[in-house]
Amino acid sequence: MDTGAVVQDFASLSPPYLLFLGDATLLAAAKTAAGVHQWRPEHCLGQLRINEGNVDLGLPDMTPAQASARGAKTMVLGVANPGGVIPESWVPTLVEALANGLDLASGAHQKLSSVPPLKAAAVQFGRRLFDVRHTDQVFETGTGVKRTGRRLLTVGSDCVVGKKYTALAIERVMRARGLNADFRATGQTGILIAGRGVAIDAVVSDFIAGAAEWLSPDNDADHWDIIEGQGSLFHPAYAGVTLGLIHGSQPDALVVCHEPIRDRILSVDYPTPPLLDCIAANVAAARLTNPNARAVGVSINTSRMEGAAIERAMDQIERETGLPCTDPIRHGPDRIVDYLLATS
Amino acid sequence: MDTGAVVQDFASLSPPYLLFLGDATLLAAAKTAAGVHQWRPEHCLGQLRINEGNVDLGLPDMTPAQASARGAKTMVLGVANPGGVIPESWVPTLVEALANGLDLASGAHQKLSSVPPLKAAAVQFGRRLFDVRHTDQVFETGTGVKRTGRRLLTVGSDCVVGKKYTALAIERVMRARGLNADFRATGQTGILIAGRGVAIDAVVSDFIAGAAEWLSPDNDADHWDIIEGQGSLFHPAYAGVTLGLIHGSQPDALVVCHEPIRDRILSVDYPTPPLLDCIAANVAAARLTNPNARAVGVSINTSRMEGAAIERAMDQIERETGLPCTDPIRHGPDRIVDYLLATS
Repeated sequence: MDTGAVVQDFASLSPPYLLFLGDATLLAAAKTAAGVHQWRPEHCLGQLRINEGNVDLGLPDMTPAQASARGAKTMVLGVANPGGVIPESWVPTLVEALANGLDLASGAHQKLSSVPPLKAAAVQFGRRLFDVRHTDQVFETGTGVKRTGRRLLTVGSDCVVGKKYTALAIERVMRARGLNADFRATGQTGILIAGRGVAIDAVVSDFIAGAAEWLSPDNDADHWDIIEGQGSLFHPAYAGVTLGLIHGSQPDALVVCHEPIRDRILSVDYPTPPLLDCIAANVAAARLTNPNARAVGVSINTSRMEGAAIERAMDQIERETGLPCTDPIRHGPDRIVDYLLATS
Repeated sequence: MDTGAVVQDFASLSPPYLLFLGDATLLAAAKTAAGVHQWRPEHCLGQLRINEGNVDLGLPDMTPAQASARGAKTMVLGVANPGGVIPESWVPTLVEALANGLDLASGAHQKLSSVPPLKAAAVQFGRRLFDVRHTDQVFETGTGVKRTGRRLLTVGSDCVVGKKYTALAIERVMRARGLNADFRATGQTGILIAGRGVAIDAVVSDFIAGAAEWLSPDNDADHWDIIEGQGSLFHPAYAGVTLGLIHGSQPDALVVCHEPIRDRILSVDYPTPPLLDCIAANVAAARLTNPNARAVGVSINTSRMEGAAIERAMDQIERETGLPCTDPIRHGPDRIVDYLLATS
């Protein structure tokens, strides 16, 4: 994160937000903005579209000046651009936001601070540039020392299976029940939703576990950190990140995320693991740093399924695993939260 | 690596070497130089000491000009300095080496190229600065695609247990038997010994497995890569690095390194794992990307043991594991190489 010319330690984004949708014409391109709006509607004041952009999140359209007048503190770039670069056509609007007193936050590969007019405007107007995919936070290597408070980590049979949304859904339900729970983000979209966190796959590998330890520090005995998982122990590219995150998180509870109809691992020619093997491997890994770690539920992604097949899949998984199974987006995560609380 | 002002892809150091021992007065401080000399004596032309330095590797003392005249291509900074910084008192000698046509190679935390007079001299004299702890190599994420050739990886029950020396000893014996084998370095000392490699714990975590895949590319069917392991699946700080390295290496054969008398994991308050658990966990991890992975031996570090205890430990481990066990430094790695070849 940069404050003007001064690079500082990582800190939180300031809501409320103006969501920048750029010139996106497909909702898929504005997935990050849609996620921020879905999970943090109370932080979203308005949306800003430029040129041919016509994606509509149903928020009021605002200029940076209008958003600033209504109290917005940060403009969130919630739109993906090919290659992760910041196109020149966006720069005047981004400068206008800085000039109107807004910080900028982006999950793009290219750093905001690497664009000279943005860097200059941030200095001139005393605004902050948050490049959430990158961090200047200096991490230590992991210590393995047990921390106070409780932790739940989502893990998965593969990438892109619902680990982030499962964690967010669990946090929402726990908070609605008056419990003391915080979502902890480990990827750029999660960070833009939560307003803080660490992109764990961008950390130098010596510090994976240490960064995960930093992310969920000592807390009250009844506090739950609900930590967003990354990758999968069964993905040949990313299992190292997953394992370091598991070890540093010291989870008391694991929720295993799974798409029942997926039979191949994403982007590589590998089979998805049998669910029981997946649960066993994650629990065994977690027990290195927390001997009491256990699985408390299976979260299934049924977005490509319909009808009775969904019910059948849930029943079968519950019989097979002895754990509650639910699609947290379709049916809510309550079954898992009930089981977690009843057995904690 | 920098060639003058131009940052290039990672490439090999050029032997022969002049070993810079600085002002070290303890052999322990010159451990890297001692390692390069022990494992690559044919690459070491001479040593260079300055000021009060009196560590002696038994090589001829040479100035940069003398070394250059005898054909040296690179001066290797083989001495550790507190904090990993390059002291000002070394700079004139390092510039003198560049002026005499030598490249510089260092495993220090501080980059050679971050020292302005060295950067300037490298440009002026057209020499290269190798900061082996850092790399400008761009890695891809892992693919998990099986590569041709054979691979042996050393793994361990802990850090600092002999993984590098075991791999180097196995490479030496295999080459002496006329086999086609290459040591593949994954840490800075290993890189200075091998002249190439990647400091895997300095790679961004998304690319651990991809960097390991890059390190041991497709090769002849009878070729063995002997890959230096890092960390341990049982170390709460580093297991993520270890797992990514295992997956990217796709080892056919694992040699498990172990110190029989160690009962606590280095730097953290964790027990060392039972040897059988350690072997099983590493083989299981390796089978994700190579279903034929198997353990072929146990390499023990007996440097803190003596007398009959060593023989007893080896016998007990062989009975317990059914695998050959040896201290490769004390007794050579032949028992393991014999078993590997007899069963491959």
